[in-house]
Amino acid sequence: MKHLSYLLVLTLTMLFSRPADSQPPRGPWIISPQVHQGDSITFRVSAREAQQVFLDAQFLKEKTPMVKDQNGIWTVTVGPVKPDIYPYSFWIDNTQIADPANTLIFANERFKHSLVDVHGDTPLIHSLQDVPHGKISYCYYNSGTLGRTRTLLVYTPPDFDPTGKTKYPVLYLIHGGSDTEETWTKVGRANLIADNLIAQGKAVPMIIVMPYGNVRPSPMEDFTKEVVNDIIPFIENNYPVTPDSRHRAVAGFSVGGGQTLNIGLTNTDKFAYICSYAPYTATEEFKKNFSNWNPDAGLINSRLNLFTLSVGTEDFLFESVKQNAAMFKDKGLDFQLDIVDGGHTWMNCKQYLAKTLQQIFRD
Amino acid sequence: MKHLSYLLVLTLTMLFSRPADSQPPRGPWIISPQVHQGDSITFRVSAREAQQVFLDAQFLKEKTPMVKDQNGIWTVTVGPVKPDIYPYSFWIDNTQIADPANTLIFANERFKHSLVDVHGDTPLIHSLQDVPHGKISYCYYNSGTLGRTRTLLVYTPPDFDPTGKTKYPVLYLIHGGSDTEETWTKVGRANLIADNLIAQGKAVPMIIVMPYGNVRPSPMEDFTKEVVNDIIPFIENNYPVTPDSRHRAVAGFSVGGGQTLNIGLTNTDKFAYICSYAPYTATEEFKKNFSNWNPDAGLINSRLNLFTLSVGTEDFLFESVKQNAAMFKDKGLDFQLDIVDGGHTWMNCKQYLAKTLQQIFRD
Repeated sequence: MKHLSYLLVLTLTMLFSRPADSQPPRGPWIISPQVHQGDSITFRVSAREAQQVFLDAQFLKEKTPMVKDQNGIWTVTVGPVKPDIYPYSFWIDNTQIADPANTLIFANERFKHSLVDVHGDTPLIHSLQDVPHGKISYCYYNSGTLGRTRTLLVYTPPDFDPTGKTKYPVLYLIHGGSDTEETWTKVGRANLIADNLIAQGKAVPMIIVMPYGNVRPSPMEDFTKEVVNDIIPFIENNYPVTPDSRHRAVAGFSVGGGQTLNIGLTNTDKFAYICSYAPYTATEEFKKNFSNWNPDAGLINSRLNLFTLSVGTEDFLFESVKQNAAMFKDKGLDFQLDIVDGGHTWMNCKQYLAKTLQQIFRD
Repeated sequence: MKHLSYLLVLTLTMLFSRPADSQPPRGPWIISPQVHQGDSITFRVSAREAQQVFLDAQFLKEKTPMVKDQNGIWTVTVGPVKPDIYPYSFWIDNTQIADPANTLIFANERFKHSLVDVHGDTPLIHSLQDVPHGKISYCYYNSGTLGRTRTLLVYTPPDFDPTGKTKYPVLYLIHGGSDTEETWTKVGRANLIADNLIAQGKAVPMIIVMPYGNVRPSPMEDFTKEVVNDIIPFIENNYPVTPDSRHRAVAGFSVGGGQTLNIGLTNTDKFAYICSYAPYTATEEFKKNFSNWNPDAGLINSRLNLFTLSVGTEDFLFESVKQNAAMFKDKGLDFQLDIVDGGHTWMNCKQYLAKTLQQIFRD
């Protein structure tokens, strides 16, 4: 930190002395990632002392070596890549780093990948389009269950009417195992998917609540209690919503998909829509609740307007989800099993959510 | 990425098999940073292959070596440290990384430091306290000046009344040179500072607008135009505010402090409060606007309720700010020069903002 002042002056000088035509909307003098016409991508990182540098990305089957120039900047161009948003990182010798030149970061409790947004020629369902936009609000609430103040994110749709004259349905949307309350917006672009589908008339205006689900020690029981006893009341006291099951949905991915099943199936009086994406269910808590479960299938089926399980054929939980589907079928539950391409990724999450948003609150 | 499934299973298994009493509210099995009673801090990072690992932190004068254990986890305990929020990173051999175990990240266009929050025994002005909380909303707006959709953050105070019955004053708050629109909340905790001061009756309920100021090629001229022509109209069309100069303030840090001077002093019909923190003014644009500036000091002084310049004695811009102060004095402008301890840091920013919030909108 002793060179901070010098570096800052250097940085500021470079910031203001760069030629206009090479300046992107964001970012420093190293441009990375640079997505080209045709959807190839150039990545760059400065590592003067390094012996070897690799690009690691979720669109690659394996790490790709980068090449060093005389300034110590390592570069690689890859692709074309199918338009989507992908996590990536660099390996500098044996150390994994996020891309210092990129503001887009994968919100996570552990290593935070950078994100590259490959737009393509046609707007995708998660693209920033010229449509009315909702807002994402970061809110604090008191969790009686956990005894502390916590944060959650609330998406309100375009032209949201806060006066109470309009009542909105609410989707409770839960992230994966090491994600945070920001992952569904920062990585999953849940807000833009909703904006686009609402603009197209394919989804109804709704509120989307994104809590932080990694509750210890009991992410099933305690988080289920928290959703029911703290989060739903907080939302219903502070937003204009219709407080009944037909205007509440719960969805989630991975660990959050397992939580979704627990929250939804043990509270069918409160949720008429349950959408579970590649659920992780190999927990003692899940087994305790569901291995000897003896549900009143007729009652549950009559209460649920929609119950979906989604998974990709390359997902490491593919077999597990099929086993869950067989179990639910065996119990007599009606559900929709959506099997798609792809793995246990946030590329798939965006597709799962886009389908859910078109299916919920239609009855 | 080929080991992703294996790693995920391993990770999920570890996540759910850890003993309850060692589990923090967030984070994986490596606990870092761990702030102890008495405000010493233990940092940990896994780097099995590394030859040397250092902790680099803004509370340290120089990098501190870490020590490796038999599992390849490097550890160091430092402090006690004065309670505050500090950026830090690790150097693994020659590569700088953020702390993979920490969710708190310094929002920035370049290397993103981790943040350690040393609470201390007494709540600080930026601490999460048991007071009513406002919200931070992430909004999209159309920038006619720049010809694209951009994002900004809007803090609304506790018990915000969106109906229009209550009108709020607005502070436009600008980040530093390589920061983003998230830096004032993620690093500067502007929302919590406002919550606490409002709860104590030391600040009036206000809206705080945090735009993204790193506009190229012309961060002074173009961003000033954007604030006046796009951002203020967006806010005033969408929030219940009083649209006159006595209910508008502008403040900012570093490059944003220079922008603050440009925005404020060239628009005293629009802003009655101008608060500039350690302004970076060594730009051609600033010189063009202010070196031969011939202001009507009487008019400006009559229009401004508050004009402040703040800087720390260890700030690398200390001399520059004093020169600016001399220039403004020479022009006949009334202003308040706040010289405090500390450097060009976000620790100082929080203090500058806390003072500003108590001074604005009091007339």
